[in-house]
Amino acid sequence: MPTRLFSFIGGDAGLWRIAAMDAMVGEPLPAASRLAIASGAEISSGLHAAWVLRGITSNERYVDRGERTQIVARLLDLGRPEATRAALIPIRKNATWWALTQDERLSIFKEQSHHTRIGLQYFPELARRLHHCRDLSENEPFDFLTWFEYTPADEAAFNTLLAALRATEEWKYVEREVDIRLVREEASR
Amino acid sequence: MPTRLFSFIGGDAGLWRIAAMDAMVGEPLPAASRLAIASGAEISSGLHAAWVLRGITSNERYVDRGERTQIVARLLDLGRPEATRAALIPIRKNATWWALTQDERLSIFKEQSHHTRIGLQYFPELARRLHHCRDLSENEPFDFLTWFEYTPADEAAFNTLLAALRATEEWKYVEREVDIRLVREEASR
Repeated sequence: MPTRLFSFIGGDAGLWRIAAMDAMVGEPLPAASRLAIASGAEISSGLHAAWVLRGITSNERYVDRGERTQIVARLLDLGRPEATRAALIPIRKNATWWALTQDERLSIFKEQSHHTRIGLQYFPELARRLHHCRDLSENEPFDFLTWFEYTPADEAAFNTLLAALRATEEWKYVEREVDIRLVREEASR
Repeated sequence: MPTRLFSFIGGDAGLWRIAAMDAMVGEPLPAASRLAIASGAEISSGLHAAWVLRGITSNERYVDRGERTQIVARLLDLGRPEATRAALIPIRKNATWWALTQDERLSIFKEQSHHTRIGLQYFPELARRLHHCRDLSENEPFDFLTWFEYTPADEAAFNTLLAALRATEEWKYVEREVDIRLVREEASR
């Protein structure tokens, strides 16, 4: 069975250099210069971690069969050599969102915000992995961690996608969001 | 914030005596005589545990606003003195279920299986708590743990409810289910 649990470790080690880290809504994360990604129960010893964010890949909750077929057809693999840029976007939605019923959340996600359609429109060929945190324990700082990988040439399109999503009805329920941008490079030391 | 994480500890200690434990589908659980319930990060030392099942209460995923209003109006509190009987029903659904999209799962749950309507019909006043396990870690043995408390007089109605649910389309996706029945009584020693 493939690993579903991933830890994103902000500190001074890891394949990814943190180029920018902006708190879009709510509290920022402590400063860190590099990001390491650990999978499963893998323990990363000797890392000086400023923060660790954990999430687990899960079943999709707002995508219908037609949309999934489109997404899967266009989803790119992670780890492509040319995709030397990445973004990690941790998000927490507020209590109002979580008190909605599934049909109400789906209506906001789909009919009012067109989340999936925006993704397919602005950035159809995307390498993305969504991690859920909310049910991992009682005290996770975020609800979702989304990891994106893209080429330097695709960065502008990625920014347009994020701007379109942040303008949706759905995003009114976001009470914490950090935008972390990364560049893949081996540490020089 | 109220505790969302609960551990059900099968062993030789706890408020609840295990009266019966039947594997309905799939592998049984090891024998145990009593059940203790721990909440949050609470550590229960000195317990001889045959098994520990953990789950976290979460947002509902298949109930619409009209149904929630009916359920909440009729949901009884846990811990009522007269509710001296309980059932713990751990369930795992198969890979086919989890590969469905949310709309397909909802259709089976609601339109084909009438899960919520069956509950309201056979046992409208129910003390129940649903715990999710699937996203807690990679290696939980079940997907859901449902805990019910009822009076001895309500046991027959509860059995009818379970039989109706087990006859639904939804239950064809259940690949492991254990039915644990409990009686609340202080240990004599």
